[in-house]
Amino acid sequence: MSAKANLVVGQGGGPTAVINNSLLGVIHEAMAQDNVGEIYGMVGGIEGFMHQQLVDLRRQRKEALEGLRQTPGAALGTCRYKPKESDLERILEVLRAHEIRYFFYIGGNDSATIVHRLNEFAKTVNYELHAIAVPKTVDNDLVGTDHCPGYGSGARFVAAALRNTGRDTEAMGKYGPIRLMEIMGRNAGWLTAATALARQEERDAPHLVYVPERPVTLDQIVEDTRRVYETLGFAVLAVSEGTVDPSGKTVGEEFAPVEVDGFGHRRKGGVTQYLQVVLSERLGVAVRLDNPYYLQRSFSELASPVDQQEAYMVGRKAVAAAVSGECGKMVTLVREPGATYRCATGLIDVALVADKERKLPSDWMNEAGNFPTQAFLDYARPLIGGPLMPHSRLDLTIIGK
Amino acid sequence: MSAKANLVVGQGGGPTAVINNSLLGVIHEAMAQDNVGEIYGMVGGIEGFMHQQLVDLRRQRKEALEGLRQTPGAALGTCRYKPKESDLERILEVLRAHEIRYFFYIGGNDSATIVHRLNEFAKTVNYELHAIAVPKTVDNDLVGTDHCPGYGSGARFVAAALRNTGRDTEAMGKYGPIRLMEIMGRNAGWLTAATALARQEERDAPHLVYVPERPVTLDQIVEDTRRVYETLGFAVLAVSEGTVDPSGKTVGEEFAPVEVDGFGHRRKGGVTQYLQVVLSERLGVAVRLDNPYYLQRSFSELASPVDQQEAYMVGRKAVAAAVSGECGKMVTLVREPGATYRCATGLIDVALVADKERKLPSDWMNEAGNFPTQAFLDYARPLIGGPLMPHSRLDLTIIGK
Repeated sequence: MSAKANLVVGQGGGPTAVINNSLLGVIHEAMAQDNVGEIYGMVGGIEGFMHQQLVDLRRQRKEALEGLRQTPGAALGTCRYKPKESDLERILEVLRAHEIRYFFYIGGNDSATIVHRLNEFAKTVNYELHAIAVPKTVDNDLVGTDHCPGYGSGARFVAAALRNTGRDTEAMGKYGPIRLMEIMGRNAGWLTAATALARQEERDAPHLVYVPERPVTLDQIVEDTRRVYETLGFAVLAVSEGTVDPSGKTVGEEFAPVEVDGFGHRRKGGVTQYLQVVLSERLGVAVRLDNPYYLQRSFSELASPVDQQEAYMVGRKAVAAAVSGECGKMVTLVREPGATYRCATGLIDVALVADKERKLPSDWMNEAGNFPTQAFLDYARPLIGGPLMPHSRLDLTIIGK
Repeated sequence: MSAKANLVVGQGGGPTAVINNSLLGVIHEAMAQDNVGEIYGMVGGIEGFMHQQLVDLRRQRKEALEGLRQTPGAALGTCRYKPKESDLERILEVLRAHEIRYFFYIGGNDSATIVHRLNEFAKTVNYELHAIAVPKTVDNDLVGTDHCPGYGSGARFVAAALRNTGRDTEAMGKYGPIRLMEIMGRNAGWLTAATALARQEERDAPHLVYVPERPVTLDQIVEDTRRVYETLGFAVLAVSEGTVDPSGKTVGEEFAPVEVDGFGHRRKGGVTQYLQVVLSERLGVAVRLDNPYYLQRSFSELASPVDQQEAYMVGRKAVAAAVSGECGKMVTLVREPGATYRCATGLIDVALVADKERKLPSDWMNEAGNFPTQAFLDYARPLIGGPLMPHSRLDLTIIGK
């Protein structure tokens, strides 16, 4: 494009601790490009855009922009709206009205799908549009990229959370020896596997890790837990919210507590609520739960510095690519070979990403399907941005009586 | 005491992120005192002590000891055992067998009670014992001390947790506009009130804070939440696990979901589970929960530096006091007057602490009983050890269409 054109950026789906770094990357690169005119933000994602909920990103305070680096949530607001076929015309109408030719959507699979469909639609009506998807998801389930911005920070938080609650459980001993934490990722176990990243010794939590990619029977979970409990005197489990048995049903569903509220409605609990009931019955000990649900994707104090920097980088890359003529792409992270961790950015056709999910490779879990392998840990460790502070253990050898 | 005597230290009740700093303070001061012979640790608290579960704390690796500063949980293991009258003789038997005259128990109200009863019992049998309670509790409910080691770190974590989940909720907008977090403290609202400590603006979470000291009707909670939701477009509540209505019943109990498991057992959910059902029915919007239960007292990455240092200080003070002849006391923190926060240590008769609870002053909550006052915030802010990193907000003024 030779003449100046306007730009819009939006955020879709669940936020992460670093999604605003990608927004800042887009803004900074847009400001650096002579071909970019107005820089608009869509308030409330694509749904807001359809209602012309646009803000001026050139006129923001510098401190507000810099503060985005450590601000969780989506600063522009997000949505879970999937545009219908008829919505595409409305989106194009708004694009035309504001003379927008650069379109950036920061999000996961669904957001990539929006970029793909919009790109295709613009072509059919001969509207020149440079639409680029900027990857974001704590689930780490986008295809075509080494990993997804947002994942490293979620991984750092859950690794710390499991390690900490493990120490608490260990200290309580028989007064509550089993503890469960439910981890995000309905279809993919990347984040659940990451709970093992801070583990240094056999006694460190988690001791058992269950992911959707490796179906497991209720009996196996009970027996695994019994074995760890009998060996260590306590057991801490990281359980994906999407853990299923071999038939594809949520584990423990047949024993599930059913909630009946005062209005007579019945609702089902989550997988750890099921397991709490079953494990306490079968093992005869107290089973406790932690469920720091949305903290997994928003806990800015545990954001990974590597993740923050990469999130920013993919935002800048998206704008640079669009201005140089690209469209219908998603920015990727490409890990460079070698012992030292380094990532560059790349581009992939967004059609290859849309509506697809990348699962945790089955062989990155051990044979029993209850713990990630060293290969997974080697893959994920650089993403959390340096080790957590070490914990220590005293020598608890009992002296002679 | 002129001759050397042996020392024992134990940890009781729920751990905190800094309880091991107090243990380290005891060990370091004991090593510095010529009058102290062996330094024993009880494994599993007073219950372990009765079974002579003792370890040698003089022979620990130096790095293991230093690592205690950032290790959550109770490094010696803890218990919730309340000694019976007949147990006191057994405890004295073990004290005699190991020639222990210095006794330190790091814990809350129940632990203070143990120290008190043991001290009284030792007097009646003419056994010279210097038993001192070392304060510890995330609940901050011990009388006679400005605050309790453990509280500042719990406060820092919950303040960060509410602020972060608030940004996530705000970003989700109508796709999940109400969020609840349940906070520890069955009888006292100190920790729940601390959720407000990181709040900078009206939109920052929490917007509503409910504590046990200020009973509240279900209708008030519904109407408070409706008002915030209608004003801001979202609402985030910090709810004490001990929130009650004016009749003393758990709020919302009559609407409570009752869990019926596969074995036909019925169990009740917590207060936020009740509120989730009621608020979603009455306001007609999605209500989400975070429940990072045990992370509140174990999240070492968010430990308050002030709290770590004070926890260490009370451990040292306890040994210094015992060696100088004190017995039957609890160490206290005494805030010094003046604009700059400083705390010294003091001593209080443990009989005045045992079995008592210090409530959040009712007038440190606002008139409506739904938010802490500035007086509370001024009291608690220094304890979390410096502000959290600032978050920022963009100007979301919609441009002309």
